Amino acid sequence: MTELADLTIDPALDLVLERWVDVSPDLVWEAWTQPRHLKRWFTPAPFTTPECEIDLRPGGRFRVVMRSPEGEEMETEGCYLEVTPVRRLIWTGALKPGYRPAPAVRSVTDFAFTAAIIMEPQGTGTKYTAIALHRDPEDRGKHEAMGFHDGWGKALDQLVAVMRSDARDSV
Amino acid sequence: MTELADLTIDPALDLVLERWVDVSPDLVWEAWTQPRHLKRWFTPAPFTTPECEIDLRPGGRFRVVMRSPEGEEMETEGCYLEVTPVRRLIWTGALKPGYRPAPAVRSVTDFAFTAAIIMEPQGTGTKYTAIALHRDPEDRGKHEAMGFHDGWGKALDQLVAVMRSDARDSV
Repeated sequence: MTELADLTIDPALDLVLERWVDVSPDLVWEAWTQPRHLKRWFTPAPFTTPECEIDLRPGGRFRVVMRSPEGEEMETEGCYLEVTPVRRLIWTGALKPGYRPAPAVRSVTDFAFTAAIIMEPQGTGTKYTAIALHRDPEDRGKHEAMGFHDGWGKALDQLVAVMRSDARDSV
Repeated sequence: MTELADLTIDPALDLVLERWVDVSPDLVWEAWTQPRHLKRWFTPAPFTTPECEIDLRPGGRFRVVMRSPEGEEMETEGCYLEVTPVRRLIWTGALKPGYRPAPAVRSVTDFAFTAAIIMEPQGTGTKYTAIALHRDPEDRGKHEAMGFHDGWGKALDQLVAVMRSDARDSV
């Protein structure tokens, strides 16, 4: 059993979204690791997520295509670093799948970050923590200005709605 | 048990050193993972390795200080990605410890790469493979011009000499 990595959060560099949600850690894990679920909640409406590829192991590919209401598509690809079922999922845009360093950043809105999703059982639901680690305060600033809290928060609302609706359907 | 990551080697992007050495995989592993050993072989003479820090787990720190005969010091720091004892060790300079993206590269001789050391038992010794993965052909070219094959080869000769001498002393 590998010891979990230490994630050191620095308020000057990082962004954190912490919420309690009324779905079990099992369902949060499924929502994040099965493309058929992820495509229904990952991008705040009216944006959509037409494509999702998940190779769920360290070094594996996490690739998503997001689409604007005008039909403009944006692809993002990263590499999983830690896959600890129903507890912690970490990936980074600083590496391509297979751990190769990602190409240098080319535009102002493009920057690499490492993301961690941490889920802890709490009452009938989950204490949900999403962390984005950045290399410098500038990248943190760009990510915040792009609407990190609002965007990740809305996506989480969608995750909850989708997974609760599925749970109801399967009763 | 986590499945091992796929490392895809691209000759246009990557550098590989493959050799058979007459030390066991156990000793190669020790040489790479214990600072007291690593400091004696890591940097080809007359350069030395006065400092080495190893936090041997995914996300952990790998930090080395190398010193030239003139006393100039160069520090390098990376993050372990895979720690599979006596089989495979992978780290990257594209991430800081704790998986944070590393600062953007600042100079021509400075570039990020991911390194993998693979050891396989073969006869009385080890089939040893060192791989350096780069983001683009330019970084591969810089690394090759800096003397990747010669430097990593000489360091490996030193590793073998140091570990065999220790093994003899302990008889």
